[in-house]
Amino acid sequence: MRTDPRSTQRSGDESGRGDAGIGPVVINGPARPAGRASIRRANLGLVLRLLRDSGPRSRARIADDAGLPRPTVTGLVTELIELGLLREGDAERDGSVGRPGQSVRIDGRALCGIGLEINVDYLAAVALTLGGDTVFERRVAMDVRGAGPEAVLDCAAGLVREALATLDAAGIATAGVTVAAPGVVDITAGTVVYAANIGWHGIEAVSGIRARLGRGAPPLRLENDAKLGAVAEYVEASAAGIHDLIYVTGETGVGGGIISGGRLHRGAAGFAGEIGHMPLDPGGALCACGRRGCWETMVGLTALLRHAAAPEDPVHDPSLDLEARLTDLQGRAAAGDARTLEALDRIADGLGLGLALLADVLNPRAVVLGGYFTYFGDRLAPRVERLMAERVMAPDTGGCRLLLSTLGFTAPARGGALLALDPVYEDPARTVAAATGA
Amino acid sequence: MRTDPRSTQRSGDESGRGDAGIGPVVINGPARPAGRASIRRANLGLVLRLLRDSGPRSRARIADDAGLPRPTVTGLVTELIELGLLREGDAERDGSVGRPGQSVRIDGRALCGIGLEINVDYLAAVALTLGGDTVFERRVAMDVRGAGPEAVLDCAAGLVREALATLDAAGIATAGVTVAAPGVVDITAGTVVYAANIGWHGIEAVSGIRARLGRGAPPLRLENDAKLGAVAEYVEASAAGIHDLIYVTGETGVGGGIISGGRLHRGAAGFAGEIGHMPLDPGGALCACGRRGCWETMVGLTALLRHAAAPEDPVHDPSLDLEARLTDLQGRAAAGDARTLEALDRIADGLGLGLALLADVLNPRAVVLGGYFTYFGDRLAPRVERLMAERVMAPDTGGCRLLLSTLGFTAPARGGALLALDPVYEDPARTVAAATGA
Repeated sequence: MRTDPRSTQRSGDESGRGDAGIGPVVINGPARPAGRASIRRANLGLVLRLLRDSGPRSRARIADDAGLPRPTVTGLVTELIELGLLREGDAERDGSVGRPGQSVRIDGRALCGIGLEINVDYLAAVALTLGGDTVFERRVAMDVRGAGPEAVLDCAAGLVREALATLDAAGIATAGVTVAAPGVVDITAGTVVYAANIGWHGIEAVSGIRARLGRGAPPLRLENDAKLGAVAEYVEASAAGIHDLIYVTGETGVGGGIISGGRLHRGAAGFAGEIGHMPLDPGGALCACGRRGCWETMVGLTALLRHAAAPEDPVHDPSLDLEARLTDLQGRAAAGDARTLEALDRIADGLGLGLALLADVLNPRAVVLGGYFTYFGDRLAPRVERLMAERVMAPDTGGCRLLLSTLGFTAPARGGALLALDPVYEDPARTVAAATGA
Repeated sequence: MRTDPRSTQRSGDESGRGDAGIGPVVINGPARPAGRASIRRANLGLVLRLLRDSGPRSRARIADDAGLPRPTVTGLVTELIELGLLREGDAERDGSVGRPGQSVRIDGRALCGIGLEINVDYLAAVALTLGGDTVFERRVAMDVRGAGPEAVLDCAAGLVREALATLDAAGIATAGVTVAAPGVVDITAGTVVYAANIGWHGIEAVSGIRARLGRGAPPLRLENDAKLGAVAEYVEASAAGIHDLIYVTGETGVGGGIISGGRLHRGAAGFAGEIGHMPLDPGGALCACGRRGCWETMVGLTALLRHAAAPEDPVHDPSLDLEARLTDLQGRAAAGDARTLEALDRIADGLGLGLALLADVLNPRAVVLGGYFTYFGDRLAPRVERLMAERVMAPDTGGCRLLLSTLGFTAPARGGALLALDPVYEDPARTVAAATGA
């Protein structure tokens, strides 16, 4: 008898679409217009996205490109200028009729997003304008596990308050704040469900910070740090025509973020991208999760340090700055130190194995390595590329290339700031109104 | 020195968006309208999708739901009726004003898609109407590896010709044919790049069949069989509100298809879903790909047969019908045969390991097991579910449930037929014109 549990298993599942494909571009897929007012709001976003993706252009060309009537576009542009999101640019010939049109462009100076990253040994805040300028950046060293959640949330709220004061003084409105956490997060509840490397279980990060900020705080949300890193990387990569990538960040843990067709792949409930615990070495080292042979025991920072240096070596000392320790190891590799090079080759072998698996499953255009991997790219990349070419089933590695992040450890905070700005492209009027208290 | 190969590696990559998210719903993301005519064509598709996704409704309600002017909708509906894609339905109250409107509904009877599956030991063809009715179904036993590509393509073309004749006699137009192949396929070239289990390397399947069919053949395309199985499963699952799933089919090989946010995840170059060769058992059995311990050596049909029965047991005999052999094993399991049950438990353990990995990476709402797994669901499912619950990092298995396919071995051919019909929802006028030779 063929069993068919589907009919019973499916009853009761009345969930709507769990993942509308949230990404750096559009937080939610465009809702179906339900009336004149919301059509107009959606069209404001459409014009703004067109100018972002295709650059400055005349009202006539916007009308052609967006498939909207010219009088409608004239009205939309006027409203976006009033919202402070567009400004008049240079005259351009519109390519059709003879008269040059006045082009308009995004004015990204007066609206800002804030990203706040909680990591193992630091907190970092970054504020980016809609135009991409960094207008605030601060990093505070902290033993996050040792300090405990309350002290960490105090410090986080303090950093946000400091950023807001700076932006306020500069006349810049804040669209929102995204908190990046190194673990499994429940974005709906704003809760860090499980973050082994900082010892957090079920910490209500968003409500904790909101309570500390008090009334009038901008919208706060939570996201996994590697997903935000992927968002930040995607902004770089999309300029090169790459719209499908996997971001893999090597720190104490190994995190991942997947961009698919230009959107952050969050999965049905927001938990996608957990790549650190792929069981690739069944008899291997013990993982923080309690199992053996997870991928992060093969390629995480702890594995590198263990392979590269004797226990008494100062590169293990957590009280020293991580970047200084990595620079130290980088120097040893450059000087040809055999143990360091051998350690890096082992890391490369583990990376090649796991990345080939991910490339088989997802077929990305690029894998972007972040975190500590970027310090050793010249040693790791050729070996990883060779292994991937050998292992990936699709011809020519499925067209996938290996890239190194240029954003380093700031990627999650930057991605958080970008995500906080994202609603403006969906509903500019409402986002600006909320940001300015209008 | 921190290396930064990105700037050089990225130069030269001017590829456009590789994956616009091809799925059962829309083959390509809607193109940006470039003029009145194409806006009208896009709106025809919009109305058709609205009626498919939300059911029959009046013109007035279509106008409200689509955000289009009522006179425009009246014209669009008239054109779709003329194309044979809509028909008048029952009177309904439109919920706003008092007068009931005449509702319209999709008329799925006169347009058809054909799916043709090439598998290890059979060829199968299915024709489905836009309304979902099966109007042709044929399966031919064949030793595909032994017969060689030319004989297989002869047989495939014969099946398509037979289907077309049947549809023609019934006055049904054919929108297209999708060929399903069990391996890595290049969909742009229409080539089976590598299909280990049938011994094909670089076989030009699409042009081979097209040449045999001659002039006037409907549009032909090629796709991986498991991806098409996922498309067919998604049509079932979407009715239950599931829009993120992984379809895993157990045959000689283990194939996968990923639906993400209602779209088939094809990856940047169409190679996504290669899950059979995940290296989960480094010291394990030799795989057809030449490596050891690939997932399909743990959970594929060969592994089940090897564990379940001595070499001389007739369940190994490839000249016997596969379904009969599986039914035989099913009977042994039901009778409590220890060796069979132990073999199934080993398969379940391997499934749990690999599915937990995939659930961590992708966070689907459901995993759908197809192929031979469906014969043993009552034994496999509880153990696989327990293992996934233990291993998946997200709470509550990330909300993922385990389902068993009800489509069995017909899923890829059905998915092929559905994919062949898909363009009608994007550009109804052009698709019908091509199908009817108008």
